[in-house]
Amino acid sequence: MSERIRLGIVGYGNLGKGTVKAIQQSQDMELVAIFTRRNPQDFHIDIPHVKVEHISTALDYQDEIDVMLLCGGSATDLPEQTPQFAKHFNTVDSFDTHAKIPEFYEKVNKAATEGKKIAMISVGWDPGLFSINRVMADAILPNGENYTFWGKGLSQGHSDAIRRVEGVKNGVQYTIPSDEAIDKVRSGANPTLTTAEKHRRVCYVVAEEGADKAKIEETIKTMPNYFADYDTEVHFITEEELQRDHSKAPHGGFVIRGGKTGDNNNQIYEFSLKLDSNPEFTASVLVAYARAAYRLYKENQYGAKTVFDVPLSYISPRSNEELRRDFL
Amino acid sequence: MSERIRLGIVGYGNLGKGTVKAIQQSQDMELVAIFTRRNPQDFHIDIPHVKVEHISTALDYQDEIDVMLLCGGSATDLPEQTPQFAKHFNTVDSFDTHAKIPEFYEKVNKAATEGKKIAMISVGWDPGLFSINRVMADAILPNGENYTFWGKGLSQGHSDAIRRVEGVKNGVQYTIPSDEAIDKVRSGANPTLTTAEKHRRVCYVVAEEGADKAKIEETIKTMPNYFADYDTEVHFITEEELQRDHSKAPHGGFVIRGGKTGDNNNQIYEFSLKLDSNPEFTASVLVAYARAAYRLYKENQYGAKTVFDVPLSYISPRSNEELRRDFL
Repeated sequence: MSERIRLGIVGYGNLGKGTVKAIQQSQDMELVAIFTRRNPQDFHIDIPHVKVEHISTALDYQDEIDVMLLCGGSATDLPEQTPQFAKHFNTVDSFDTHAKIPEFYEKVNKAATEGKKIAMISVGWDPGLFSINRVMADAILPNGENYTFWGKGLSQGHSDAIRRVEGVKNGVQYTIPSDEAIDKVRSGANPTLTTAEKHRRVCYVVAEEGADKAKIEETIKTMPNYFADYDTEVHFITEEELQRDHSKAPHGGFVIRGGKTGDNNNQIYEFSLKLDSNPEFTASVLVAYARAAYRLYKENQYGAKTVFDVPLSYISPRSNEELRRDFL
Repeated sequence: MSERIRLGIVGYGNLGKGTVKAIQQSQDMELVAIFTRRNPQDFHIDIPHVKVEHISTALDYQDEIDVMLLCGGSATDLPEQTPQFAKHFNTVDSFDTHAKIPEFYEKVNKAATEGKKIAMISVGWDPGLFSINRVMADAILPNGENYTFWGKGLSQGHSDAIRRVEGVKNGVQYTIPSDEAIDKVRSGANPTLTTAEKHRRVCYVVAEEGADKAKIEETIKTMPNYFADYDTEVHFITEEELQRDHSKAPHGGFVIRGGKTGDNNNQIYEFSLKLDSNPEFTASVLVAYARAAYRLYKENQYGAKTVFDVPLSYISPRSNEELRRDFL
């Protein structure tokens, strides 16, 4: 390997932990430091040469880190952190509040342009790989309809949103797709399906002692972007039950397009993921796109970029010759 | 639409006919002329303003055509035509002899670089969309294995190869995947599978009168790149049977990667197509990538390009703002 890409991680929750593991699988990458808002002394990272630092010291690492992987949540962390970091570092984040992406893009683009850095935003599998497939299917089969189904799985973004509700100690959310709806779409019938007909959302919540459960349930069910438009169930459980029954983070989903060409020929395009660990997979996508951020930066490009802006070869550690020979 | 992309088609077989239909579905595109080696008078194309011309006149259209879609076969047409045309036109082709792609790339790259044109090579679904998914899955899940399955379906490239065998009047080839093998791969077991364990190839051949059928069968079964490595069946049928039972061109297939992250978590990545019409779908991919060829050319890029070199937004008729807002 000619030169290794030096990475930093901001935020050491599930996604940050997955990112550490993903970097260890990538021979062209090297983790330099993990930055946290908590006390760095509380962390024991058993990897040689990797430092744990308080987030306030990040700027001292400008010359030692090529790309900073921002592993905070979309609700409150990334809207603040990405514009701040993008002025000083190439960044990759997984901002996933779909409705707010245009606004987020504008802010981050301004910051990254000022700093002459690359900020890859909204990377992961949705937004991310699913977005890529929605665009590809739409471009190739203009006469057709895109469908996205999620689950069955635990959604990090939605669980994060639950945990930020006042009075909530802990919680998880499962998204469950409708088999009947998927079969209809696979037939090429291009049905009209409301979001609620495609999925429901099931939440398991641990309330803080003395919290107002009715208010928590109401706050979750009416939360805009996350729950308001869905058929949402809220179940209150104990911390012990949560740890015992809901500690894994499986997920997955489907992007399907039924298109028609020529004389009414059905062309069914389908992409799917079945993930034992959602944060580890999302982290793996972030790390691959760190490669792209680094290469775009080396070409003197800057500004906010999405998965739509990146030639695919930029996320691969392999040479163009190898890709043409063995993968085309 | 600000400006329409002006297209030409070279070769009016199944792929050329599918391309005409795909262009008609694309509002930002306009078909100028179809070029054929046969007598143009023999063709009746019922589309206003579209000319049918002999291939020898193509150079007269340099100022009227932005991108030329090369719809010939990979066995003998494209190895000659793409390097010739790439000197004078931006081109898109579907060269699909995987083993010869590096050599083809070098030749075409030289021609397109001389002519300062863009030559998008090996576009379609395999090579093409399947290649994209092989690279993406490999980059994101380095610890894993890629599997490609084809069919059940009629392969244009392989049927073309059969029809070029001496003594063959007509013929089709079906590729059939093994369900058992697919299930193993979906389980995340990452089995070792030989190509023959994954598929078999079944050929239906119409021999010319008096032809040596044993020799035809032998020639097909030993053809390098196409059949030699596979369990291949050859059935001789009449032209009537061929027209009655094998006139449709369905196809499809799967790219699956079983990868592992972290502590032995299985992450299953799957892409699949189920196509009523293989040539119409391949044509739809060619047309989407004509958009990319045109945009790269407008940026003063040139040379041979593959699907790995193109930012995804370049194949979409939609603006970057729209893609971020509605597809990310």
